Order: sequence, then C-alpha cells, then structure tokens
Amino acid sequence: MDIALAQARKAAERGEVPVGAVVLDGAGQILAQAGNEVEGAHDASAHAEMLVLRAAARRLGSSRLMGCTLVVTLEPCPMCAAAAVHFRVGRVVFGAYDPKGGGIVHGPRVVEQPACLHRPEIVGGVRERETARVLRQFFRKLRERKTER
Amino acid sequence: MDIALAQARKAAERGEVPVGAVVLDGAGQILAQAGNEVEGAHDASAHAEMLVLRAAARRLGSSRLMGCTLVVTLEPCPMCAAAAVHFRVGRVVFGAYDPKGGGIVHGPRVVEQPACLHRPEIVGGVRERETARVLRQFFRKLRERKTER
Repeated sequence: MDIALAQARKAAERGEVPVGAVVLDGAGQILAQAGNEVEGAHDASAHAEMLVLRAAARRLGSSRLMGCTLVVTLEPCPMCAAAAVHFRVGRVVFGAYDPKGGGIVHGPRVVEQPACLHRPEIVGGVRERETARVLRQFFRKLRERKTER
Repeated sequence: MDIALAQARKAAERGEVPVGAVVLDGAGQILAQAGNEVEGAHDASAHAEMLVLRAAARRLGSSRLMGCTLVVTLEPCPMCAAAAVHFRVGRVVFGAYDPKGGGIVHGPRVVEQPACLHRPEIVGGVRERETARVLRQFFRKLRERKTER
C-alpha cells in the first residue's frame, strides 16, 4: 500500500485525482505500479487499476492474472472492479471506501452479482484514514484554488 | 451497425470472440472502429468498446465523448458499460442481448444505479438476430474444433 500511496501522491502532483495502484504476483513481486492518467492521457478509462492490470498482463504475456493481488488506494469503480474479474485477479486490496463511485462494496457490487464469473478475494479499508486523507487534501486544495479565482 | 458487424467478423477471423464496435460523433462521422483484441493483445480489458472509446477520445483530444454514440454488436459487459459512463457517451446502441455477461439491461445494470453520474440513452436489440448469429456461429465452430481433437 506504501507504493500505491506514493503513486497516488505523484498523480496529485500531475493534477490527477490521486489514486494509485500496484499489481503483485503470487510471490509478492511487483509486476506494475501506476497512478491515474485520466487527464494527461485524455482517457476516461485510464484509472490506476486499469493501467496496472494491463501492464501486469503485458509483462506476464497473459491476460489472466491468477494468483496476483491488485492493491489500490481507493475502492475500485464498477469499470475497474469488472476489469479485475476479467483479468482473473486473485485478490483485491483497497484503502478508502467510496460510497459514491465504488463498485465493490457499494453501487452495483460487481463481484457479488450472480452472473459474475470469477470472485477475487476482497480486503477493503486497508490504511483507510491515510488513503482517504490523500484524496481529501487533493479536493480541498482544488476547492481553495477555485475560490481564489 | 454494419461497420460494427464487419469488425466482429474480422475479430472472429483472428480467433477473438466476435464483438465489434464503432464510435460516431454527433454528426454521424466515424471516430473509431475496432473488434475485440483480448487474445492478441494479452489484455482482458481489450473489449471492442474499450478500444473504440479510448481511440475516439484520443482522436478528439478529450476524455469526454458528449454527443457521441457507441454502437456495439453485443450488450456491453459491466466494465464497458461503466467505461461508457466515464467517457460521458451520449448514446449506447447494441445488438444482441447478453443475459450472462451483460451489464446494461442484465447483471448489475450499471447505468441504472442511483450513484451513476451520467446516463447515456440506451437502445438495445438492434439487428438482434444478425448480431447474435455471428457469436453463435463462432462458438459453434469452437465447440466443433474441440470435439474433433
């Protein structure tokens, strides 16, 4: 989660919503790490999770990430939750809960759908206060900047 | 839908699940077209819809596809349905319904979630028999090949 947090802080410096993610293989080795790239890449799907899942799969030369763990600072949205299912990730570990945009324990609860083909193990709320603080600080600064104008 | 169907047939020739997609701008001009690339790209997220949404946004230099239409031969899965929301697509037109893997009128019904930030207009079942047939033929051939082995 330290690495994911560092990626989230780097994303904030680039003006991106500060979410960071890492994919680890079964031995705990890092396969990929990234922060959000939505603004920079003009790509609304360039969430940190999508970037690391694709990069990890590229690195392994396989679209299946069986036995791998996705670690991310925020509860994945429905798109990213469904992508973790498509990539057959073994485990999803996330930091802050996201009641508005989350898709794992909130909203459509993608992984709990009866038709869901693969159910990664889910661990939520890891270092919750710290991961939530990075987001809160970012949005507070954004509001302050808007008020200054 | 003709173009999406042609992309689906090309995908089948590459050994991909035959789904094809197109993004049109508000004037009906084609911004992007693609078929599934999951196997070829070792990328479980490389569904036709994700590819065309990203390509269209790249082409417009904007992560928002307001006023654009996503046309796809099969009901989008939850990942692609949520991506269409992130990209703020104006309309999603799809062919065959997908009771097992669909995420728009089946499964998590992503766009109908109360927390969903943007609701594209949805038109399903367009040239349903034709779009479904392409998929059915592909899976029938796949089964026949497996039986031959």
